[in-house]
Amino acid sequence: MTRIIKAGIIGGTGYTGLSLLEVLTRHKNVELQFATTRRRKLVGKPIHREHPNLLGLTDLKFSLYDPMNPALTEGNKTLMNKARESDVVFIGVPSGASFNITKDLVGYNTKIIDTSADFRLKDPALYKEYYNREHPLPDLLNEYVYGLPELHREELKKAKYVACPGCNSTAMILAGYPLTKLQGYMNFTIVYNIMTGSSEAGAEPKRASHHSERSGVARPYYVKKHRHLAEVRQELGFDPSKLSASMFAIPMVRGVECIGHVFPDRTVEEKELWKVFREAYRNEQFVRIRAKKTGGPGSLPDVKYVRGSNFCDVGFFVDAESGRIGVISALDNLMKGDVGNAVQSMNIMFGLDEATRLMDMVPSSLYE
Amino acid sequence: MTRIIKAGIIGGTGYTGLSLLEVLTRHKNVELQFATTRRRKLVGKPIHREHPNLLGLTDLKFSLYDPMNPALTEGNKTLMNKARESDVVFIGVPSGASFNITKDLVGYNTKIIDTSADFRLKDPALYKEYYNREHPLPDLLNEYVYGLPELHREELKKAKYVACPGCNSTAMILAGYPLTKLQGYMNFTIVYNIMTGSSEAGAEPKRASHHSERSGVARPYYVKKHRHLAEVRQELGFDPSKLSASMFAIPMVRGVECIGHVFPDRTVEEKELWKVFREAYRNEQFVRIRAKKTGGPGSLPDVKYVRGSNFCDVGFFVDAESGRIGVISALDNLMKGDVGNAVQSMNIMFGLDEATRLMDMVPSSLYE
Amino acid sequence: MTRIIKAGIIGGTGYTGLSLLEVLTRHKNVELQFATTRRRKLVGKPIHREHPNLLGLTDLKFSLYDPMNPALTEGNKTLMNKARESDVVFIGVPSGASFNITKDLVGYNTKIIDTSADFRLKDPALYKEYYNREHPLPDLLNEYVYGLPELHREELKKAKYVACPGCNSTAMILAGYPLTKLQGYMNFTIVYNIMTGSSEAGAEPKRASHHSERSGVARPYYVKKHRHLAEVRQELGFDPSKLSASMFAIPMVRGVECIGHVFPDRTVEEKELWKVFREAYRNEQFVRIRAKKTGGPGSLPDVKYVRGSNFCDVGFFVDAESGRIGVISALDNLMKGDVGNAVQSMNIMFGLDEATRLMDMVPSSLYE
Amino acid sequence: MTRIIKAGIIGGTGYTGLSLLEVLTRHKNVELQFATTRRRKLVGKPIHREHPNLLGLTDLKFSLYDPMNPALTEGNKTLMNKARESDVVFIGVPSGASFNITKDLVGYNTKIIDTSADFRLKDPALYKEYYNREHPLPDLLNEYVYGLPELHREELKKAKYVACPGCNSTAMILAGYPLTKLQGYMNFTIVYNIMTGSSEAGAEPKRASHHSERSGVARPYYVKKHRHLAEVRQELGFDPSKLSASMFAIPMVRGVECIGHVFPDRTVEEKELWKVFREAYRNEQFVRIRAKKTGGPGSLPDVKYVRGSNFCDVGFFVDAESGRIGVISALDNLMKGDVGNAVQSMNIMFGLDEATRLMDMVPSSLYE
Repeated sequence: MTRIIKAGIIGGTGYTGLSLLEVLTRHKNVELQFATTRRRKLVGKPIHREHPNLLGLTDLKFSLYDPMNPALTEGNKTLMNKARESDVVFIGVPSGASFNITKDLVGYNTKIIDTSADFRLKDPALYKEYYNREHPLPDLLNEYVYGLPELHREELKKAKYVACPGCNSTAMILAGYPLTKLQGYMNFTIVYNIMTGSSEAGAEPKRASHHSERSGVARPYYVKKHRHLAEVRQELGFDPSKLSASMFAIPMVRGVECIGHVFPDRTVEEKELWKVFREAYRNEQFVRIRAKKTGGPGSLPDVKYVRGSNFCDVGFFVDAESGRIGVISALDNLMKGDVGNAVQSMNIMFGLDEATRLMDMVPSSLYE
Repeated sequence: MTRIIKAGIIGGTGYTGLSLLEVLTRHKNVELQFATTRRRKLVGKPIHREHPNLLGLTDLKFSLYDPMNPALTEGNKTLMNKARESDVVFIGVPSGASFNITKDLVGYNTKIIDTSADFRLKDPALYKEYYNREHPLPDLLNEYVYGLPELHREELKKAKYVACPGCNSTAMILAGYPLTKLQGYMNFTIVYNIMTGSSEAGAEPKRASHHSERSGVARPYYVKKHRHLAEVRQELGFDPSKLSASMFAIPMVRGVECIGHVFPDRTVEEKELWKVFREAYRNEQFVRIRAKKTGGPGSLPDVKYVRGSNFCDVGFFVDAESGRIGVISALDNLMKGDVGNAVQSMNIMFGLDEATRLMDMVPSSLYE
Repeated sequence: MTRIIKAGIIGGTGYTGLSLLEVLTRHKNVELQFATTRRRKLVGKPIHREHPNLLGLTDLKFSLYDPMNPALTEGNKTLMNKARESDVVFIGVPSGASFNITKDLVGYNTKIIDTSADFRLKDPALYKEYYNREHPLPDLLNEYVYGLPELHREELKKAKYVACPGCNSTAMILAGYPLTKLQGYMNFTIVYNIMTGSSEAGAEPKRASHHSERSGVARPYYVKKHRHLAEVRQELGFDPSKLSASMFAIPMVRGVECIGHVFPDRTVEEKELWKVFREAYRNEQFVRIRAKKTGGPGSLPDVKYVRGSNFCDVGFFVDAESGRIGVISALDNLMKGDVGNAVQSMNIMFGLDEATRLMDMVPSSLYE
Repeated sequence: MTRIIKAGIIGGTGYTGLSLLEVLTRHKNVELQFATTRRRKLVGKPIHREHPNLLGLTDLKFSLYDPMNPALTEGNKTLMNKARESDVVFIGVPSGASFNITKDLVGYNTKIIDTSADFRLKDPALYKEYYNREHPLPDLLNEYVYGLPELHREELKKAKYVACPGCNSTAMILAGYPLTKLQGYMNFTIVYNIMTGSSEAGAEPKRASHHSERSGVARPYYVKKHRHLAEVRQELGFDPSKLSASMFAIPMVRGVECIGHVFPDRTVEEKELWKVFREAYRNEQFVRIRAKKTGGPGSLPDVKYVRGSNFCDVGFFVDAESGRIGVISALDNLMKGDVGNAVQSMNIMFGLDEATRLMDMVPSSLYE
């Protein structure tokens, strides 16, 4: 008998919501209870009114929910009741908007999978350092598991509350994680150079993502200290004074391509890297290693070959002349960089095969 | 107990082969026996060597098969033996290259699903008119079913040999088919205007599809008589002297967007079109009707909302001032315009749920 | 001695304004007096603050002007005084917004070149039919010359007020114009199929042109009666009941590709088309004929080969089977489809070499 | 009286040749004598047969020249005679192919501007280290000036032979050059991260640049030691053991976006960087500084704002937490990264205004 999980989506109109709908409408163990919006004119309308691609795939209609609007007490309460009766609720709202929702949802039987950044950090001081404000619900932080199965699978099995990493964090962590396993070794400088697609900026129209303006760019945007580095620091223990990152918007919709340029204080051989990468990801279904010396398509991670899937491809090289190590990762920002982690976490939390539904999403090298 | 179908792919390196592999490696009722290549250096190599996206998804290795090369008798024989022991063989070679393969494969128990144009036409005279040569195996033509389930589902249930339509044919036929059901009506002039992506031209590098040259084009290519019109004529009975088409290469990789401008000899109302489109596709899982007057994303068929899936979206309008009817279709040229038809046909031929595997391929509006 | 023309731009932040700035900052006979904005925070700021590409090319700063805002009387008056002292003012505001400006500017020595649609039609009744309202300044209509040099060069030489056609109108008119010269012949049905880039929709961010949503589309938008057809009717005399058009947004930023499918009531030979196209454009510097039968890049008009320039490429073919004629045009919507016409008109109005500055803008086939 | 320079192009079909033609056909001081090809079927054909964008811009026809083919002695000799009578010859052949041409051309009055990498390095030992072979004409190396006006303007004024840098070299050198002027300072580690467009790979069709394969990539290609680093070392004196680079192919046709991540051994302030960047480029017309802290479009160099022009935009930042400096450059690989340097050098060599023709090529932010 198939186990059926009652699931709801808070934030059904953004790109996280859209991607959750794309994945969950075809998850054989999931029965979607609701997907919310705060746009009044969408309430009661079929999902495909906002997401035309989903025509014919679900009969679900948008529910009203606007946690920021006190006048909405009644509507919000109705939705919250539905949420509390669900087995799991996915929160797909922008970072900062999750607190009000969470406050009303904790303490019930419902599990929470939050894709925002609001509960990812364990240490309120770290939150304050990177987000420039006090965490409003610091006591909850330790109840959350960081929803990256490759690092926290055992905890996820017992987790009730999960905060899933976003695309840049996932890319930096999965590229860098094997470095933590290098023999007698943790002292290096690392700078991540990250290339991102336009969907990372979300569904809200604005000039920087207007088609005419966003097409054809190679635009530096966060070039210095970045909030997501807090997660790399937490998860990998990298020395914050030796960790930095710069991001570039490039002409694509989906995908994150990430390289960590690493300057170690001793010579590292490529075979050492092979060892720690294999060790780190030997049993992972969704992390694939590409580190061929041959060059050419597919020899190192390229977003081209993960787009549309839950794979994160990782690779590495040693530049003998300079002693520099390169660690590379490529993922689809809406899948392994977002809802892929969320659904993979759900599968684990509910004792399902971890790859359910996700492995059906085969990457095509013919998506742009 | 799950029925397992032993399937093979002849032509595993082209885009049809790639797409078949993307679909069939995750089809729960299919066990892939082989995928062939004629490139010697690929033989025995894992599939992902040529198709990096498939790393981790299949252990299959390329088999040698080159029907055009007589010196290869031994290698070809070995493969042909495997083929004859399979339940079904997909032929994914360019049009014109299927004859030699077919000759060696007919008369055994193996079913054939051919994605080339070689066996699509019933009438050898029609073949000669559009392909400028005699059909080499005319006696076989009547043993083939035209592999478009929306028009030939009942025949497919009993079919042994199937010739599936390509992307332009499928787009023109599914857009035009409801017109054949208009009351007391078959006299009109129709010109199809078709926009295509670069993957339609196949995997072979050449100048016209070199990235720098192909990017940013809106390039007329087949503007006059086109071979594929023979299929429209065969399937819909449109008067050949009143049927024409022009094609434009536009800046995308996947997708066909097709509009038929129709000039009828009487006034047609939009509600009549609603009636015949509904009638034609009421029970179809993979044909969705979009014909909203509101305008805006999703109101009419747009490749954006079918990309990556087996859907063909269709729509229509009446331009009251001129009396012109527009019939529109949008599909993914590698799915509903190619291997989607092939796998949907296989599902029907083997008594499976017609949507098996195919409905899992949810279109994302965030693919380019 | 070089003749210097004092010119101003009303509407300096939109894409027409941007393109005017790109052209005029390097026009050796033009001295830019002002470029306006109604966004307060831009006033007094250098042009490159809004248009980063123009850094280093001009020292001009934005001037305030907001004709829709009565509270601005003072600021508007100041600008209007500058405008009235200029030799020519380019009006680059959206259609409908030009009336208030024009009212204040006519009757002075200043020439006006208006790129909006507000003064393109001669007949107020035609305006009403297509724009669904009375023209607010009908008496002015006959003082305007339609700013398409290929059809109105002689009038432009003496013109004081010019209304330039936009991209779709220019494309339809230049493709169709030679048909008016066919011997003993004006009876046919024509449907234009037009493919457009995202910059046509202007600089205002909105969902339909959000990068993630606009990328990868082939989206039907105006499929029926369209305002721009009024201009085709006025300029070419085509029978309105036999004239129609459908438009598709395709994945590019700049460019219009237009095909007119023409169904004549007699057989037309390709050599007749050669004759009338040559006759129509023999002396035109910016209209190039492409009508090779060979196929391949460059054999027919393709936006790829006009992008960035003031060329409009035109071509044609006869489809012998169906008797259909195809007339094709390709242009850059911001140049020959907008400010190219405006500057070419200015050159003519002021007695300059018509190609001044414009011919320097060589199209590159390596722009996307 | 306008000075007219007789110029020829060896290698007229590649992208360097194409770009030279785009620039030089409209250079008021240049009279093109010839453009060569080694493809027999193009010889005697108009330029636009191969480069459709140039239709109407030049009457030049392709001349035969194939230095690699000894059987061609006669044809080659004819061309070489023309070359020797020209004031200047641009050599636009791939690196390695210039030697045979050069051998036959030195010693005459003709000046040479070579865009290949064959004569860029002064030191034959350096050539051998990076190109893995002996330089075939080492005695000539010192007769060449490195054709980057920002570093070698005075030498260019007297130069007879010039070897112009390519796109990656120009990007790395112009981003890094100001660092050489930092007070009491030359000790740091630098890694360049470079993003490139598809036109950099040239006009030859191959799988890696097939449209379907090249679209949508973020593909690491040269991740380790790279030949172009030799030029950075030569021009800037950077310590080779602390200098490295990784390159990524991204989804665009034109453009190079380059960031140098710099790890200095003392704290560097942003105002120091302002000082040295201003000092380095104060008098440069084609180098623009962008280093705003505000973020947003245009605050730092972005290929979007240089595409189509000869500008190289440069910028910088200091990441206070890590002490890392970022130096950024953006250029059009076919202009400032190739023929822009060549034509700017020519202008200087012949005593013309350095910006002749080049400043007319205004970048548009609406090219992709």
